[in-house]
Amino acid sequence: MNEHIVKSYAGELEAMSADILRMGGLVETMIMDACNAVAFGNIEQGQKTVARDLEVDALEADIEQGIGRIIALRQPMAQDLREVLAALKISNDLERVGDLSKNIAKRTETLAEGNAGTVLKGMLRMGQAVTTQLASVLDAYRNRDAKAALRVWQNDEEIDQLYNSYFREVLTYMMEDPRTIGTGAHILFMAKNLERAGDHATNIAELVYFFVTGEYLDATERPKIDSA
Amino acid sequence: MNEHIVKSYAGELEAMSADILRMGGLVETMIMDACNAVAFGNIEQGQKTVARDLEVDALEADIEQGIGRIIALRQPMAQDLREVLAALKISNDLERVGDLSKNIAKRTETLAEGNAGTVLKGMLRMGQAVTTQLASVLDAYRNRDAKAALRVWQNDEEIDQLYNSYFREVLTYMMEDPRTIGTGAHILFMAKNLERAGDHATNIAELVYFFVTGEYLDATERPKIDSA
Repeated sequence: MNEHIVKSYAGELEAMSADILRMGGLVETMIMDACNAVAFGNIEQGQKTVARDLEVDALEADIEQGIGRIIALRQPMAQDLREVLAALKISNDLERVGDLSKNIAKRTETLAEGNAGTVLKGMLRMGQAVTTQLASVLDAYRNRDAKAALRVWQNDEEIDQLYNSYFREVLTYMMEDPRTIGTGAHILFMAKNLERAGDHATNIAELVYFFVTGEYLDATERPKIDSA
Repeated sequence: MNEHIVKSYAGELEAMSADILRMGGLVETMIMDACNAVAFGNIEQGQKTVARDLEVDALEADIEQGIGRIIALRQPMAQDLREVLAALKISNDLERVGDLSKNIAKRTETLAEGNAGTVLKGMLRMGQAVTTQLASVLDAYRNRDAKAALRVWQNDEEIDQLYNSYFREVLTYMMEDPRTIGTGAHILFMAKNLERAGDHATNIAELVYFFVTGEYLDATERPKIDSA
């Protein structure tokens, strides 16, 4: 939260949204930075991404404190309360995407030794798809656009498909040469982390849809592929 | 939330705690049920565990709505507000543990075909450790016991050690016979899910410590092993 001495209630809600968007922007760059670090064996970029997660955590703590203050001092009702509680959960989802990206970036050094080469390039494809989803849902949040949130929610299927085909590719790589099994296990975890980051984007889409419309998206309607 | 027509504010807070504990109890059984289903190839138990996750999700939605009502109508301050916001996050952590257990249980049928045998037994050891952590943190929550929460937080190291040794065991299993790589990948994901369930127990310990004492546990003090 920006620390202005005197701020209107509307100004406090705007500052909260702005902080969420800033946190979202940070996390968005972390995903691609982590994938690039791993795919190109860039150890320095990996370390920077790990360090950036501290900023994200600090921002989440700030947002939570700000929301606690808004609830205690402004006693928001109806749509405002929905918006404030949604922001609390969105910051939690973003924090977890930051954590997942950090977890990918941490493996940079180990994988740089493993000579995994081409199979790691699949990380870039998945990372790009997840980044696009996250950017779109942050746009939907900024514009309070329920329709755009719905589109993000429906697009999760694409990430699931990418994940499933990448999963099979990595298994094949492991079977061809058992010495690659350790490296392959790392790649499987990273791919899973990206798939889960995509799920968090979908969660955020549900939260945006709910706080804008007051209605829940019915999870049974989404075409969810069972992934490995 | 139980639907009494008239309830005092204190009664509403108690009902909230009771719902959290009930949700925690459900999730606790899900972890071991999922591990047993997988370790003994019990397909029916696997399906039941998957179905139980719907109850957990419904309970989380109830708790959230109840908390929204408390905030809107009772305007909690200071310690009460900390407790209410902590409960919101605890229910979120519990929901995720339920989700991770469901994800394990879903693999029962696939693994029952795979003839993985002994290597799956390691799931029971890890599941037991995670269940113990979760039960302890729920006790700490019920008794508002910051010291007990601190002990849970410090014990996470044990799960990390179990995870790391199981991870190596599974990799060895995969290297000995490349035909087991597909099965091994499933086991690695399940072990990772249990490690993450343990992390959620640790998160809950932090939340209990915070709402009871008003102070944050400093994450840098915890002896965290870097796991694969």
